[in-house]
Amino acid sequence: MRTLCPAGLPKPSEDARDESLYNTGWKSQRDKPAGGRGSRRGVRTVPTFKRGRAHKVGLSPGTLVHAGGSKTEETRISLMTYDEAAYEERELTRVEEAFPLKDGPTVTWIDIDGLRSIPTIEALGEHFGFHSLVLEDVVTTGQRPKMEDHESYLYLVLRMVRSKDSTGEIDDEQLSLFLGPGWVISIQEKAGDVFDPVRERIRSGKGRIRKMGAGYLAYALIDAVVDHYFVVLERLGDRVDALSERLVTEPGPASLRELQTLRHELLFLRKWVWPLRDVISRLERCESAFFSDSTRIYLRDVYDHAIQVMDTVETYRDMVSGMLEIYLSSLSNRMNEIMKVLTIITTVFIPLSFVAGLYGMNFQYMPEIEWRYGYFTILGLMAVMACGMVLYFRKKRWL
Amino acid sequence: MRTLCPAGLPKPSEDARDESLYNTGWKSQRDKPAGGRGSRRGVRTVPTFKRGRAHKVGLSPGTLVHAGGSKTEETRISLMTYDEAAYEERELTRVEEAFPLKDGPTVTWIDIDGLRSIPTIEALGEHFGFHSLVLEDVVTTGQRPKMEDHESYLYLVLRMVRSKDSTGEIDDEQLSLFLGPGWVISIQEKAGDVFDPVRERIRSGKGRIRKMGAGYLAYALIDAVVDHYFVVLERLGDRVDALSERLVTEPGPASLRELQTLRHELLFLRKWVWPLRDVISRLERCESAFFSDSTRIYLRDVYDHAIQVMDTVETYRDMVSGMLEIYLSSLSNRMNEIMKVLTIITTVFIPLSFVAGLYGMNFQYMPEIEWRYGYFTILGLMAVMACGMVLYFRKKRWL
Amino acid sequence: MRTLCPAGLPKPSEDARDESLYNTGWKSQRDKPAGGRGSRRGVRTVPTFKRGRAHKVGLSPGTLVHAGGSKTEETRISLMTYDEAAYEERELTRVEEAFPLKDGPTVTWIDIDGLRSIPTIEALGEHFGFHSLVLEDVVTTGQRPKMEDHESYLYLVLRMVRSKDSTGEIDDEQLSLFLGPGWVISIQEKAGDVFDPVRERIRSGKGRIRKMGAGYLAYALIDAVVDHYFVVLERLGDRVDALSERLVTEPGPASLRELQTLRHELLFLRKWVWPLRDVISRLERCESAFFSDSTRIYLRDVYDHAIQVMDTVETYRDMVSGMLEIYLSSLSNRMNEIMKVLTIITTVFIPLSFVAGLYGMNFQYMPEIEWRYGYFTILGLMAVMACGMVLYFRKKRWL
Amino acid sequence: MRTLCPAGLPKPSEDARDESLYNTGWKSQRDKPAGGRGSRRGVRTVPTFKRGRAHKVGLSPGTLVHAGGSKTEETRISLMTYDEAAYEERELTRVEEAFPLKDGPTVTWIDIDGLRSIPTIEALGEHFGFHSLVLEDVVTTGQRPKMEDHESYLYLVLRMVRSKDSTGEIDDEQLSLFLGPGWVISIQEKAGDVFDPVRERIRSGKGRIRKMGAGYLAYALIDAVVDHYFVVLERLGDRVDALSERLVTEPGPASLRELQTLRHELLFLRKWVWPLRDVISRLERCESAFFSDSTRIYLRDVYDHAIQVMDTVETYRDMVSGMLEIYLSSLSNRMNEIMKVLTIITTVFIPLSFVAGLYGMNFQYMPEIEWRYGYFTILGLMAVMACGMVLYFRKKRWL
Amino acid sequence: MRTLCPAGLPKPSEDARDESLYNTGWKSQRDKPAGGRGSRRGVRTVPTFKRGRAHKVGLSPGTLVHAGGSKTEETRISLMTYDEAAYEERELTRVEEAFPLKDGPTVTWIDIDGLRSIPTIEALGEHFGFHSLVLEDVVTTGQRPKMEDHESYLYLVLRMVRSKDSTGEIDDEQLSLFLGPGWVISIQEKAGDVFDPVRERIRSGKGRIRKMGAGYLAYALIDAVVDHYFVVLERLGDRVDALSERLVTEPGPASLRELQTLRHELLFLRKWVWPLRDVISRLERCESAFFSDSTRIYLRDVYDHAIQVMDTVETYRDMVSGMLEIYLSSLSNRMNEIMKVLTIITTVFIPLSFVAGLYGMNFQYMPEIEWRYGYFTILGLMAVMACGMVLYFRKKRWL
Repeated sequence: MRTLCPAGLPKPSEDARDESLYNTGWKSQRDKPAGGRGSRRGVRTVPTFKRGRAHKVGLSPGTLVHAGGSKTEETRISLMTYDEAAYEERELTRVEEAFPLKDGPTVTWIDIDGLRSIPTIEALGEHFGFHSLVLEDVVTTGQRPKMEDHESYLYLVLRMVRSKDSTGEIDDEQLSLFLGPGWVISIQEKAGDVFDPVRERIRSGKGRIRKMGAGYLAYALIDAVVDHYFVVLERLGDRVDALSERLVTEPGPASLRELQTLRHELLFLRKWVWPLRDVISRLERCESAFFSDSTRIYLRDVYDHAIQVMDTVETYRDMVSGMLEIYLSSLSNRMNEIMKVLTIITTVFIPLSFVAGLYGMNFQYMPEIEWRYGYFTILGLMAVMACGMVLYFRKKRWL
Repeated sequence: MRTLCPAGLPKPSEDARDESLYNTGWKSQRDKPAGGRGSRRGVRTVPTFKRGRAHKVGLSPGTLVHAGGSKTEETRISLMTYDEAAYEERELTRVEEAFPLKDGPTVTWIDIDGLRSIPTIEALGEHFGFHSLVLEDVVTTGQRPKMEDHESYLYLVLRMVRSKDSTGEIDDEQLSLFLGPGWVISIQEKAGDVFDPVRERIRSGKGRIRKMGAGYLAYALIDAVVDHYFVVLERLGDRVDALSERLVTEPGPASLRELQTLRHELLFLRKWVWPLRDVISRLERCESAFFSDSTRIYLRDVYDHAIQVMDTVETYRDMVSGMLEIYLSSLSNRMNEIMKVLTIITTVFIPLSFVAGLYGMNFQYMPEIEWRYGYFTILGLMAVMACGMVLYFRKKRWL
Repeated sequence: MRTLCPAGLPKPSEDARDESLYNTGWKSQRDKPAGGRGSRRGVRTVPTFKRGRAHKVGLSPGTLVHAGGSKTEETRISLMTYDEAAYEERELTRVEEAFPLKDGPTVTWIDIDGLRSIPTIEALGEHFGFHSLVLEDVVTTGQRPKMEDHESYLYLVLRMVRSKDSTGEIDDEQLSLFLGPGWVISIQEKAGDVFDPVRERIRSGKGRIRKMGAGYLAYALIDAVVDHYFVVLERLGDRVDALSERLVTEPGPASLRELQTLRHELLFLRKWVWPLRDVISRLERCESAFFSDSTRIYLRDVYDHAIQVMDTVETYRDMVSGMLEIYLSSLSNRMNEIMKVLTIITTVFIPLSFVAGLYGMNFQYMPEIEWRYGYFTILGLMAVMACGMVLYFRKKRWL
Repeated sequence: MRTLCPAGLPKPSEDARDESLYNTGWKSQRDKPAGGRGSRRGVRTVPTFKRGRAHKVGLSPGTLVHAGGSKTEETRISLMTYDEAAYEERELTRVEEAFPLKDGPTVTWIDIDGLRSIPTIEALGEHFGFHSLVLEDVVTTGQRPKMEDHESYLYLVLRMVRSKDSTGEIDDEQLSLFLGPGWVISIQEKAGDVFDPVRERIRSGKGRIRKMGAGYLAYALIDAVVDHYFVVLERLGDRVDALSERLVTEPGPASLRELQTLRHELLFLRKWVWPLRDVISRLERCESAFFSDSTRIYLRDVYDHAIQVMDTVETYRDMVSGMLEIYLSSLSNRMNEIMKVLTIITTVFIPLSFVAGLYGMNFQYMPEIEWRYGYFTILGLMAVMACGMVLYFRKKRWL
Repeated sequence: MRTLCPAGLPKPSEDARDESLYNTGWKSQRDKPAGGRGSRRGVRTVPTFKRGRAHKVGLSPGTLVHAGGSKTEETRISLMTYDEAAYEERELTRVEEAFPLKDGPTVTWIDIDGLRSIPTIEALGEHFGFHSLVLEDVVTTGQRPKMEDHESYLYLVLRMVRSKDSTGEIDDEQLSLFLGPGWVISIQEKAGDVFDPVRERIRSGKGRIRKMGAGYLAYALIDAVVDHYFVVLERLGDRVDALSERLVTEPGPASLRELQTLRHELLFLRKWVWPLRDVISRLERCESAFFSDSTRIYLRDVYDHAIQVMDTVETYRDMVSGMLEIYLSSLSNRMNEIMKVLTIITTVFIPLSFVAGLYGMNFQYMPEIEWRYGYFTILGLMAVMACGMVLYFRKKRWL
């Protein structure tokens, strides 16, 4: 039973183990145009996908309304079709142009950037026979990574991450993958993706890709997605590293904020990667005919990578959570240092000041006042007191 | 065995995994009329459902006593009956008016608001053959979401949440759903629900709803309940967001209180959603004839949504729990700042004061006193001391 | 296999999931006569059951030595026997008087209060054929709730809790239940129990109880035990509520102590309820002939209640654990307030004092001294300094 | 499959659930002769068994080198042999003297104290046919409790604990048990054990022990080991109790150290008890012919005890971990008290001192100075200021 | 099914239990040549393996690019071949020299140090028929320990650790093991390994190793790897021990840093050991013909050792995490001590200074000034005040 390909329903027994892990639909708030709520401070910590979701409340299920908001751009459709001998690549203005290739002998890859064009999605759905709930998932960004086996096609949702060049922050978008016999359809939220190396390999004809079927292409796309998690994690690792330094050298609100940001980014990475692992594992064990045995061994490899990503995320989380404790200890330590300085100064000078005040009193009869060397005696006494105090603090190892 | 529809008993193996998760019966204490214990401060943190439960102690099982207390209102019974061609909608004064429709060809939906009318519940129970323990559960609010398969009908308990318009606080009530062949009965604690879009879809005849059976109607109701969790979470997210700002800009007891309130609300949301997921999963896998295969695919969709709700709740919990730590760090940081100011001022002026005190002594023989420029010398000395201190603090990076 | 009734051995796979949960044998230390170790402070936090256990070390297994200590009182034996038509109730001086009823047609309930009379237990064990290890468990209080199926009878250990009227503290005792065909034997540690409503229902003949067999009676007793957990939790909830207020209004060692007491009480409640749930679940799924199918449905209801108790305990634990953090934050906050006051006062007056000290010096040549308006100038200067400081603190939002 | 007796390999599925639980080989560092590293402070917290282990690195597996170090003493061999009618007890100088009894009709118990005599172990191994890896485990102390079924014999490793009379600290040693048809061999690290009551029962012939076979003897030994955990826990409970008091009355580094010691002792107890439970559970379910059905029921009893020990350990851990938090709160509280005193004194007197300093200035023209009642006016003003401050602190509830 | 040898894919059910445990590819940052980022402070906490991984992004799978970076050195190939009668050992310049031995009757062990020579790896892969993905794993250091059964050979990845002599820091490298019928190939990242004792045993012919096949050799290598974890843990234990002392005697940033370093080292050890245990367990249960039954029992032994390593790592983690809390408590304690000193001094002297200041006022009419014993009266008064204060602090137990 376990090697069957369950139709996309996470088994409760698997879910429960992953409790409190999943999340989806978080969007880097830094993308938001200025002026919105919370935009003043540059970082918003709360996912907004609920908004889209909440706006759909009450609609009949299967109604296509793009709920992804700010990330959507113009829709771009590009087509690649190849077999071992040749390949063709072109931009389409209408998705219908690609339909004749559906049952052709070549491998066809339709890549759609942007979800704004509902008619495109609908045409696609109609021609390829996708279920309306699946189409709804495609346009409702913020899905949790999942895999559904609809017999005539496989449907996958993944979260594709990239590192922004400037800041190292995570740029994420939803990727829908459809895999059928001889064709792959990928639908992304916006322009820009991680698939250029795959395209390059198709164009150059190097490696195995041109010799294998659509299943291998799907694998190659998933592999590209997983590999970019490594890139993102490397940037993140640099930031963890830098923060680790900075919390010691310049502790303060700014570092705390960065710490919190890192924690949130790791929180979301984790929530994308955990179900991803599940998706790939189900892909590999699934008996779908879309993957040949030789492709399956590559899926296993990608699965190992997904676990490695997960490990790294967990390690970073452990490190970042340890940082806060160390930081608190440092603050306490520093506080102790400050208090010591205050205490030493105060403790040394307050008694001296008292003595000085004593001989500043105006009593008419104060015998010491009239002594010839009273002043110097008192100065000496004060010096002794001060030295005593200092020795005392030495003994207590405060100095 | 797993695809069978277990008669409502949570399997221990599943329970144990969800350990410490469930809760039920929490009522927003803000509903309470003023004057009660704890009402002074506006927020009570401890659920009171036990009271109802405790008052029932010693009664024979199956005795119907409404134990839900303050939320109960007048009972309102409304009836919708429809098939693909037509629909009828009316208010009933007595529930018995709806009984003839039970075995009719149309889909019948009886919706009851308010639990005060025990005879209504009893009449319903008798006519439809509901078990007395089930009826007891209907009137004893504070049930944990569950699903029981009584062969001739399915019984579901869900917790229906809405966001109060004014404050964004959570307004929750218990929803009992009965599903039989051709009929659905929903019993709510009080007026007002999340089903208006469903009613609208029935009236307009748009979408699939009029074409499908009672199973699809039950699905639509559950879907409406789950969708409102998204609405509630969005409001909550706004509050988390605002609090995140406020803990930094105005840390203090008020923000701490808000933090605690948020934590409790998330605690309860979590405890309602976890078993909810279980309920839907069991519904989907259950072999009951009330759900056609085409409806079952929609249940899977709702299941995905329930998991997404769960994810979001967990994410918010992680964020809110992180907030307290960050807040504590901020407090420590701020304390350090305060201490630095105190220490710098004290450390600079106390030695100066001592010197001034020294020359305020009234000794008859103090040579410096009589020097022509003694005063200015001492002033200069003091300036040097002060500058030295300031430089020292500079070096220590306290300034 | 799972519906079989395993003979009392917790399956490791179930145990492991409940790791760190079980506990037994804790006795409210407030029962202890004064004078003992730790009695000075009124609360002892460490269970003492080990003592009893430890005193038994080295005895042959199955040896009956009452190890429960201080709670034991005189043994009271009461008998109830009933069928649908009639019931009889009487106090017995010797347990042997009840033996003739064992195989009679009526339902017989023997209720024994107090464990001091070892011969009574032994006579019972011999007549009913109880295993010597079971009898040892009966008299060795501090057992963990469990259920053992010895074919000719079922043996259950439960922990019965009540709320003390005066303080709301938990009063707990061990309850042993034997269930055979036509008879139920309940053995309690001490007088006073939660079974009066059950007795009343038997006497009045209302409800189902007189019509059903011994299995239903056992169910009714278990139900009474579980229902009293709700009563205890309600009292506890009030205390949690009150403490929540008090930690804010009068933080201090007393509230901390109360917090710790609450934590311990919840810790023990939890450890009694977790295995209780297991016991009931096993009862329900077990194939024993002692429970008819119609009774089994009631066991399912009691199981739901046990889960609800568990939920509430977990919720309280979450709340109480959150309280400490909030309390620590409050302390930090308060400390910051105190430090601010100190710092403001010190920072405003120390420079002023220095200036005053300056002009208290006795130098013979201090030009300002002789100025006509020197004094007023200086006073003005001081006022300016003070105002400057105050403005500075305003800017820093410390005032 | 589960009732089979797996040959000593912990199933991964069970191990994983016990993650982070196991430990072995910790030796009470207080046994160490003085002079070693860390001996200055009396308590070393880090297990040293690795040393022995590390010294064996590179040896061929199965090589017998006693790696237990400091605990080993002279080897003592004692023999008990009995049947229902008679018993014999004697000390052996050479283990070979016992070999003729191996296949005799009586039950033979060979008890070896001390691991220094490798030839004894080897002779034993050869005669009884023990695997060389098993013998290696016997002499390599620091094994984790385990059970291996080698068909012709069962091999068990347990950790035997006792409480030192003087301090209540835990004294632990490794116990190896071999069980074959008609014989039991127990090998301990050093003299002194927990088996005296068992020996006494054999001698007196009371109870069941003389009537039953070697399986029952093995049970009796295991039971004695488990029972002594209760004794140890009782002593520990007293220390937890005392510490709980002391953290409040005399908080300080000494109590913190004791707290840390308790935590470590509980950590190790836990790590010995968790696998112990597993061992007993496997023993009970195993189909070995060495245990008769009537003995098996006793194993179930011992299993219940092991779970009770585990519960108690977990409870103590919860308590001890709660203590630290309470202690930190107390420290914070106390700090607040100290700060309040400082702040009140400072805030009351600093302004007064300033005023006094003001009139200590030597300006030639200070009108108040010359007033008749200037002095008294100022004194009155100071009194008013002081009272104002005190009232202010009253209002703030600092007094 | 469980005894089958799954082809290297960790079963999700097992993975999930080990959640947040795995990690791979961490390299002791102290190896890095100076000058790199972070090298200033000597310790970098973030793994860099991602770099290698990230650089490979976009390459066709199975492309061999050594991604291990700084650890790679010249490749050294050594060959051992033996049977019971004889052995031969030599250094190879080209790996092809060993190929003729592949199918010979002797056991052949090819050991390769260094991954720089891609052609060597490729030649090996071609001759022995290794899958290209496996070869990719060999050269991509940072793999998670795993085992893959490719029918004609087994592939294992382990992480080999050693302790650096000078500092006790952990020196780790990736070890790839191939096991076929009659041959073992081990590929290490760099020169130096833990196999010298194995080589010695082969040379001397002592023990079992020369008599057994390649499976036993593989076992011996794995055993050597696991045994060195004990050595590393012993060094680590010493450092934990020393730190435990040092946190008390010299708390400060340096000890905090050491604490953090220890935590990270334990974090990584844990992440290497958890999958290691899995690998060995799968090896043992796997039905591969490469291991004879007599070898399998040794694998079980090594499995026990792996669990013991895991236990020790977990224990150290518990200890180290407890240390931070104790350290924070100590800091708080120390702060309280400092504050007490400050408060006592301040509180004693400030009122005295005020009195002195009072009589330093220059009012013309101050009756006490003119008293004969005014000065001494005031001195006495001050002494009384000081004593009162001291007594007050005594009472409060601050002194």
